[in-house]
Amino acid sequence: MTTDPATDPARFREDGHRLVDQLADYLQSAAAGRDMPVVPATPPGPLLERWSAPFPEDPGGQLGELVARLLADSTHIHHPRYVGYQVTPTLPLAALADLAASLLNNGMAAFEGGPAATVMEARLVAWMAAQLGWDAGADGVLTSGGSLGNLTALLAARQVKAGFDVWSEGAHGGPRLAVLVGEYTHYSISRALQIMGWGAGGAVPVASDAHFRLQPTALAQAHAQAHAQGRKVIAVVGSAGSTATGAFDPLADIADFCGEHDLWFHVDGAHGASAALSPRHRTLLAGIERADSVVWDAHKMLAMPALATAVLFREGGHSYEAFAQEAAYLFPGSDVREQWYNRGLRTAECTKRMISVPLFASLSLLGTKVFTQLVDDAFDLARRFGERLAAAPDFELCTPPECNIVCFRFVPPGAHDLDALQTRVHLQLGASGDFFVARTTLRGNVWLRTSLMNPRTTIADLDALLNAIRALALA
Amino acid sequence: MTTDPATDPARFREDGHRLVDQLADYLQSAAAGRDMPVVPATPPGPLLERWSAPFPEDPGGQLGELVARLLADSTHIHHPRYVGYQVTPTLPLAALADLAASLLNNGMAAFEGGPAATVMEARLVAWMAAQLGWDAGADGVLTSGGSLGNLTALLAARQVKAGFDVWSEGAHGGPRLAVLVGEYTHYSISRALQIMGWGAGGAVPVASDAHFRLQPTALAQAHAQAHAQGRKVIAVVGSAGSTATGAFDPLADIADFCGEHDLWFHVDGAHGASAALSPRHRTLLAGIERADSVVWDAHKMLAMPALATAVLFREGGHSYEAFAQEAAYLFPGSDVREQWYNRGLRTAECTKRMISVPLFASLSLLGTKVFTQLVDDAFDLARRFGERLAAAPDFELCTPPECNIVCFRFVPPGAHDLDALQTRVHLQLGASGDFFVARTTLRGNVWLRTSLMNPRTTIADLDALLNAIRALALA
Repeated sequence: MTTDPATDPARFREDGHRLVDQLADYLQSAAAGRDMPVVPATPPGPLLERWSAPFPEDPGGQLGELVARLLADSTHIHHPRYVGYQVTPTLPLAALADLAASLLNNGMAAFEGGPAATVMEARLVAWMAAQLGWDAGADGVLTSGGSLGNLTALLAARQVKAGFDVWSEGAHGGPRLAVLVGEYTHYSISRALQIMGWGAGGAVPVASDAHFRLQPTALAQAHAQAHAQGRKVIAVVGSAGSTATGAFDPLADIADFCGEHDLWFHVDGAHGASAALSPRHRTLLAGIERADSVVWDAHKMLAMPALATAVLFREGGHSYEAFAQEAAYLFPGSDVREQWYNRGLRTAECTKRMISVPLFASLSLLGTKVFTQLVDDAFDLARRFGERLAAAPDFELCTPPECNIVCFRFVPPGAHDLDALQTRVHLQLGASGDFFVARTTLRGNVWLRTSLMNPRTTIADLDALLNAIRALALA
Repeated sequence: MTTDPATDPARFREDGHRLVDQLADYLQSAAAGRDMPVVPATPPGPLLERWSAPFPEDPGGQLGELVARLLADSTHIHHPRYVGYQVTPTLPLAALADLAASLLNNGMAAFEGGPAATVMEARLVAWMAAQLGWDAGADGVLTSGGSLGNLTALLAARQVKAGFDVWSEGAHGGPRLAVLVGEYTHYSISRALQIMGWGAGGAVPVASDAHFRLQPTALAQAHAQAHAQGRKVIAVVGSAGSTATGAFDPLADIADFCGEHDLWFHVDGAHGASAALSPRHRTLLAGIERADSVVWDAHKMLAMPALATAVLFREGGHSYEAFAQEAAYLFPGSDVREQWYNRGLRTAECTKRMISVPLFASLSLLGTKVFTQLVDDAFDLARRFGERLAAAPDFELCTPPECNIVCFRFVPPGAHDLDALQTRVHLQLGASGDFFVARTTLRGNVWLRTSLMNPRTTIADLDALLNAIRALALA
């Protein structure tokens, strides 16, 4: 089948060169904020019609045409006025390294399945652990996303702290368990607990302060409440920062509480653990070095293609607790803890993407300062935007931004139903194609929410955003 | 920052063209089986030393140099003599489409996060469901791998069949649950149950026949056994085919049993559901049209980059049962079941890779026949290899292959410790770099195991494999 067009290296070369030019042109336009709306306007139903199946039986058509349609109907994360969800304009070099991964397609479960990607992963995990202030005893894995990462960490917490062998005996082998979580913890935490069969009561909310941070003085009450409900508390989850508002929970205080009560301390740093790379901002993470486990998404502030999540354990041995199991055809050895190189022992995935390749390549070739700069620029821009909002009489800043997530709302004089106004502004902005912001509900009120992930976004773009909102309201 | 080399479109263009040439050259060599061992020989420790960190602070070095090292130290899935794990030599076109996904990096949780990828996913799910013989009422999602896919399907099964609201009440809200599974079911099934807090007893093994297929007459006994252990059986899992031997469980018989006992019927078709695309081989799947849920990996027989798994539900509404939860900032609407386009409601992932893009592009541009051919060629090659093994006096075929997985062992006259011999052969073959086969333990004995995933592998390659094994034994 060497001449089959489906597998022909010559066709890969031709298509590949055309694609690189096409994507480079696109990147240039998107980065300049030209020739495209930020988000396409077509609603789901009509868009589904446009991408009709059935698929043909025989080959035909050009990749370039299909990619042109894909580009037109996708959201333009590289556009400087995309300031919505916490997704990142990928570093172009990382996307290219990812192409090598897509072609090599090494499976990663066992060492022979992906030798280079395996040792790259080990190096990245060690480097990330060191950024958190951990020593060489730390360890961890890369996995497919923050939700799966949080589940992996909480499985280890369950196994270490439940007081019985949950993996073997199941939930019925002991008391109902609980984890204390801040009110504004990401939904993947409570979801993980519900996956594990803890029910809706497994996540016990801890009250937060005026700035949406977990209130350490409320931990004891939440602990007592869980106890009163017949649950054994095994862990506390701190957010750094929270998805909703970017608030950083007081990690050192949580660590104190965990130490006093022999609890596992998990930090969901999917978004904000990257602050560790910034000498100016790493104080936000003070206390993270005392966590038992940390989740850190490289596909957020480190600008990697999704999904690229690190699950890090201060005591490296704990990384083997999440999945206490062997598969004879993959891991025929005896002592699994000596098999650091068989990554499938410690990941939810059996076959895994070569997640390590883009980040290892980017750190090696671009250097670490680029990442420090990404964090500093984004956090600084958010602070300036927050100052703008605080100074504007017709806008309300939800809370001074701690990182690059800013929640605010439009409060023009005389407006009455402010929630309905934010909802309308959100929809109209999206439909205009000029900006994309997200929307959230906090303490019963609707807010607009921006994540400033793009180094090309400027304060002028954000001034323009505020003016666009003012103009919409007049229309 | 528009001139920053880290984000410069011009650098993407230059690096991209060089990379395409480099990967095309590599693909040509690998596909021809030239200039490289199948698997690199360096053991984990020395390889880790070779990929040293720390990373530099400042930029430096060329992508091409790093990729050259990556290629040298990776496993060569495109090499026709890689016949080990169930990983696939990616279709080059799919790898290119994946580059567009890596750059666009649309997050997929909410529709606006990835409009085109969302409707592509909906189209693919509908197409795959139709291949299984399901009507338009079926639905499902794409997710990050078969293990996560099996977990997702089993979460839905738990919610629908447990008899109480496990999501809200937790495992303690009702009896211990169980699922009946074939002896040779993939480890991700029992792992999913242990994640869910069912313990080691949650997966109740069903005896298999001489050909490693679940024995339908043994289902009643396993059911009774679970009942005697105080467990409520809610589902049966059939494999199509099993990872260990490629055996296809008798799905129609399992469907009968599930119908009689009101059980959820899940099919782990991660490897073998692709047989649905082959008129000659789809009889292996007879009965799958009666399943409640099916997992089907496109990164196995459909030659996509990892990870690309479909979780399909015959009754589409069941796809909303796995995760019965909302996140206010993502899904502000009321009736979630009308939000087919907000994929994050039904996936473990919040941010998700644009998984749909490579498969949609490949089916659109290469046509469906290519995939039929991939299945037919691989299955046919395995049958011929099985005949060779059966005819060879010094080899033993484990069981006639039903698909493209073949287990066998070397049994030269006079050999005494056959298990030790297979282990030695496996290690020496790997070290030689000439071939890569896997190794597994079945019914207490060690076997060599090949997955024939590469359309360039010929019967001559497999004859050479047998001769290489004979030569090793003489050495």
